[in-house]
Amino acid sequence: MADLDPTPTTPVDLRSDTVTRPTPGMRAEMAAAEVGDDVYGEDPTVNALEAEVAALFGHEAALFAPTGSMANQIAIQLLVPPGDELLCDADAHVVTYEVGAAAAYGGVSSRTWSPAGADVDPEQVASMIRPDGYHAVPTRAIAVEQTHNRGGGGVLPLGTLRELRRIADEAGVALHCDGARIWHAHVADGVPLASYGELFDTLSVCLSKGLGAPAGSVVVGSAERIERARVIRKRMGGGMRQAGVLAAAGRYALRSHIDRLAFDHVRAARLADALAPFGVLAGPVRTNIVPLDLTKCGFDAPALGVAARERGVLVSVLGPRIARLVTHYDLDDAGVDRAVEVLTEIFRR
Amino acid sequence: MADLDPTPTTPVDLRSDTVTRPTPGMRAEMAAAEVGDDVYGEDPTVNALEAEVAALFGHEAALFAPTGSMANQIAIQLLVPPGDELLCDADAHVVTYEVGAAAAYGGVSSRTWSPAGADVDPEQVASMIRPDGYHAVPTRAIAVEQTHNRGGGGVLPLGTLRELRRIADEAGVALHCDGARIWHAHVADGVPLASYGELFDTLSVCLSKGLGAPAGSVVVGSAERIERARVIRKRMGGGMRQAGVLAAAGRYALRSHIDRLAFDHVRAARLADALAPFGVLAGPVRTNIVPLDLTKCGFDAPALGVAARERGVLVSVLGPRIARLVTHYDLDDAGVDRAVEVLTEIFRR
Amino acid sequence: MADLDPTPTTPVDLRSDTVTRPTPGMRAEMAAAEVGDDVYGEDPTVNALEAEVAALFGHEAALFAPTGSMANQIAIQLLVPPGDELLCDADAHVVTYEVGAAAAYGGVSSRTWSPAGADVDPEQVASMIRPDGYHAVPTRAIAVEQTHNRGGGGVLPLGTLRELRRIADEAGVALHCDGARIWHAHVADGVPLASYGELFDTLSVCLSKGLGAPAGSVVVGSAERIERARVIRKRMGGGMRQAGVLAAAGRYALRSHIDRLAFDHVRAARLADALAPFGVLAGPVRTNIVPLDLTKCGFDAPALGVAARERGVLVSVLGPRIARLVTHYDLDDAGVDRAVEVLTEIFRR
Amino acid sequence: MADLDPTPTTPVDLRSDTVTRPTPGMRAEMAAAEVGDDVYGEDPTVNALEAEVAALFGHEAALFAPTGSMANQIAIQLLVPPGDELLCDADAHVVTYEVGAAAAYGGVSSRTWSPAGADVDPEQVASMIRPDGYHAVPTRAIAVEQTHNRGGGGVLPLGTLRELRRIADEAGVALHCDGARIWHAHVADGVPLASYGELFDTLSVCLSKGLGAPAGSVVVGSAERIERARVIRKRMGGGMRQAGVLAAAGRYALRSHIDRLAFDHVRAARLADALAPFGVLAGPVRTNIVPLDLTKCGFDAPALGVAARERGVLVSVLGPRIARLVTHYDLDDAGVDRAVEVLTEIFRR
Repeated sequence: MADLDPTPTTPVDLRSDTVTRPTPGMRAEMAAAEVGDDVYGEDPTVNALEAEVAALFGHEAALFAPTGSMANQIAIQLLVPPGDELLCDADAHVVTYEVGAAAAYGGVSSRTWSPAGADVDPEQVASMIRPDGYHAVPTRAIAVEQTHNRGGGGVLPLGTLRELRRIADEAGVALHCDGARIWHAHVADGVPLASYGELFDTLSVCLSKGLGAPAGSVVVGSAERIERARVIRKRMGGGMRQAGVLAAAGRYALRSHIDRLAFDHVRAARLADALAPFGVLAGPVRTNIVPLDLTKCGFDAPALGVAARERGVLVSVLGPRIARLVTHYDLDDAGVDRAVEVLTEIFRR
Repeated sequence: MADLDPTPTTPVDLRSDTVTRPTPGMRAEMAAAEVGDDVYGEDPTVNALEAEVAALFGHEAALFAPTGSMANQIAIQLLVPPGDELLCDADAHVVTYEVGAAAAYGGVSSRTWSPAGADVDPEQVASMIRPDGYHAVPTRAIAVEQTHNRGGGGVLPLGTLRELRRIADEAGVALHCDGARIWHAHVADGVPLASYGELFDTLSVCLSKGLGAPAGSVVVGSAERIERARVIRKRMGGGMRQAGVLAAAGRYALRSHIDRLAFDHVRAARLADALAPFGVLAGPVRTNIVPLDLTKCGFDAPALGVAARERGVLVSVLGPRIARLVTHYDLDDAGVDRAVEVLTEIFRR
Repeated sequence: MADLDPTPTTPVDLRSDTVTRPTPGMRAEMAAAEVGDDVYGEDPTVNALEAEVAALFGHEAALFAPTGSMANQIAIQLLVPPGDELLCDADAHVVTYEVGAAAAYGGVSSRTWSPAGADVDPEQVASMIRPDGYHAVPTRAIAVEQTHNRGGGGVLPLGTLRELRRIADEAGVALHCDGARIWHAHVADGVPLASYGELFDTLSVCLSKGLGAPAGSVVVGSAERIERARVIRKRMGGGMRQAGVLAAAGRYALRSHIDRLAFDHVRAARLADALAPFGVLAGPVRTNIVPLDLTKCGFDAPALGVAARERGVLVSVLGPRIARLVTHYDLDDAGVDRAVEVLTEIFRR
Repeated sequence: MADLDPTPTTPVDLRSDTVTRPTPGMRAEMAAAEVGDDVYGEDPTVNALEAEVAALFGHEAALFAPTGSMANQIAIQLLVPPGDELLCDADAHVVTYEVGAAAAYGGVSSRTWSPAGADVDPEQVASMIRPDGYHAVPTRAIAVEQTHNRGGGGVLPLGTLRELRRIADEAGVALHCDGARIWHAHVADGVPLASYGELFDTLSVCLSKGLGAPAGSVVVGSAERIERARVIRKRMGGGMRQAGVLAAAGRYALRSHIDRLAFDHVRAARLADALAPFGVLAGPVRTNIVPLDLTKCGFDAPALGVAARERGVLVSVLGPRIARLVTHYDLDDAGVDRAVEVLTEIFRR
């Protein structure tokens, strides 16, 4: 156990894939990026990124945004007028981690279905949709999350998504994908990004989480919607000027960091395999998230967080009994080895 | 069938208990009401009504509002700051029939549990509560509805409500009761109004539905909250001047129309008994609402609505297969007889 | 001074014309009113009132609302989408006495011109209008107030209003009239109500202030706008049921209380004449409001309020040096005599 | 005129100082920036920038934001609760160029004074402040803009600002400075940044306009306010992860680009001197903005824009008769020479 230095200089950070730092190659492209004033539509690197992401998903247009939260909120404000309704699951990022912006800024009323990991029951969703009417709160959009953050990185099968599309079409409501980690679904299920793209009215995709850019997300949709999205982005305070310095990182990430997510998935599976014997896995591990439920093993999540941190491993504590490990670009095999060693030692006690 | 005149001058109106007209006695008190400028706090009849309702529920203070929707929305805005969260069931009036006001005007984020009629599973509610935190949408209030409108007039047992109170206290969140028809619960279960009152931080109660006043609801709460409620009511546009003319009707209704709700319950039970053989009841009938689910009998709800209307009986159509009958002050035994005759004839075909 | 009993049972109330109580004739019509469920559009008295008010102003449709604030806010939400702009004067009721509802609930951005009593400089208004544009806050509506409450009951000349209409048309923006006291302008200037009506996209008119109904206002506009207004009223919590009991008062007031406003104007002029020698008039008195500015006479407005109240006369204190007297239905010549006696005695000291 | 190539490859861009591109030195620091996850508070470069800016203005704390609009809106939401009031001038950036966000997202009611260039009349501002009260819209904050964008880059004298501070203190309202270009005021008037800082409750300052960073602004205030600002920034969608790549540019700009603004001022003065004979200056030129009013010379601003663009000079057209020239880092003496040549030639016709 000589290598288990209790205060390592660089901890193994499994809290989130948001902690990745730009690579040298990415930094070099950022430093060389051709830029302009994006509020005037004149940043060539931003324009190129937007065109590339729109093309990846087979949509007409796309818009760069500083964060995934803003990208989601722009899409929601595009699809749902104030006082009308968004349906999503009760653990969706858009009603959990975005500080209530949909309601506070968009005036969007939400009703939620009870999540079962990442799974969605299309019939349940269909039964919740409400038509327009005098007293009513008409449903205008349904949001799903691919992969699902609080759902343990689970992947919605293409068939389920197609069923949701059919339901949405029948009811005349829009379908939004919070695709912050859609890249992981694409890699895990081998579904082309365009096959996802064709199912949604809008998607938000993140360049900063799994893909490793320092910041930036993209909203994808029709030309008409993205035109309006530009105004909403300005109102949200997201109209940056020479945003090409960030967009350059995003373009690099799209070229270089999608396929390599498979490594993150393998590493997450290794972590899961090592921890499975302790009965702490909250569900199957499909992508780069290992969700832990410590209820059965009687462990306290905050205590796990402290014990691991003392040994140089950082984990996310999400509740009294809920924790999470996330693999990412900045985590290599040695990091996984160390994490396994530390965590198994803790659980063994 | 000679009495089944297809175009009666006065139809039997089972759409809602909101259709009742003030009685002669109520009109006389309204006409004689002592009034003043309630925006200045000088309407003696309003002041008396507010004091009476506060006392009924054992609270410090109360505030008159023109409608039940405004009363609910005032309470929600009192309890939940913009961007924070309200939990309620997915069929609750506050997220179904109030045109999205909680989000549109209050900026209130909502997550919902799947309703099972009027029932609430306290453990499920407990599991949805979220603490304060940096990214989070902290839960500030839980709303229940007593009796439950879309839940077929079902009554939440006192034990369930006490369990919810315990959960709310433990989590430090507020508990609101949409008590538009709490009078019916009181009559059906024999629970004193004050026993309900002590369990909630705020209640809204309606003088206009079952109680038969032409308009008016009351928000009940602490003196501090009702002080702030006065400002919110003004912002909502609910600060009427000589509101005593309406409050007089409310006072009359409180004195004269609570106990008689038992008759409405008996009449609803009669309707239910008559229709039960057709397999159209959506659930048990506890109060004055008879919920119909026509799925099994293969009937179309809009078609039922038209057929009944042609024979002088009005019913509420709430969905392709869902309809509702409601008993109330303006409906007597003869009306119930006629409704039974018309509806059984229709279902028999 | 024998008649100046320092604690009269009924004070002479000059605070506002909102304090009037319904007359016996009005009460009788309320008590006899035919009513129905107005949320279903079935209250015949409300429907009649709405048709009558629409006709008075030469518009297609109208909608009853519980208060003048709600009527204004409905109109503003009809005309200005969230994030767009309303122009009005800095003393307008809509940005002064409605608790910020236009911004808080409607998301309406406002810019204001400096008021000069009731006067409006059309060229200044024209110069403030902003076109649509990418960063911009496009002006969607201009609101004026007729008569102007904080502007001392002043009347905007028809010529000025026509000039504003021309400017609004040229710029493609809407024009709203907060006509809570438009009746007084009609009586003072002899301008037909329809001549006002044709100049505005929407008007709100109040049945409760000068006209003496206990509560109620009406929004006037096109059929399409009033259709949408119905939904906004529901969201604001203004969808009352048997609202005919209030509408009956409004119909009575429209028939019986418009022409008699001339008496209120005469009484206000008498008050003004009596107080003019003390140099306390803030401006000319055109209608039923006597605005006082005590700066020159060195008097303190709150002290005036207290001194007058002690002698049975109630006045509105609006600022350290600003007070206001308002004449109305419940004030007769004897009341004016007493007020003159009390106030001149106070100012004489 | 040989040098007046009608289609130059790089136009002389006088539209705004937002068009500047990062310099090689700035890019090098960005590429080398040490970064971390700023949502976790772990980006050392962001933390350093925030500490430096707070220190410059003598405040406790500061927060990085992606844009100046977001920085302003965060401050406004900090200072003014929904439904309460912000006072500013009618040409202020916060009610002109931020897409109505204060009202749409913050629910902030605004009243405005008529601007006279950059000047503010403290007595007029004082007269507009409204106290708390039942119906009222209480004034919570006053915003000024230093330098004033639409006010032609004018500088508010320190004395005026001190008088506003005194007025704000007396009334108990907050004072916010939209200091996007406060650096220019500091250079033009020689007032230390800390002397400005001590007069305001909150300031927003921009790293991207005159200072030349690609993006980024900073909100400055008390530790308590900045703590809350962090939550608002998250809700606005401004919580970027490795924001240090942008903060590095900001730190570089603060070190290297403040003093050099004097050159921009000299160049603006040169432009003004050259154009003064044509009677097109809208006011005195104090900093880097040359406001043009073409009314007197009878010229059309859009026509000027087109004519100048054809000759390789870009100007901002702000209205039918209003245009603007702005000097900045990317504009050298040769650019000014060319602009003078092109514009004088156009005006001479």
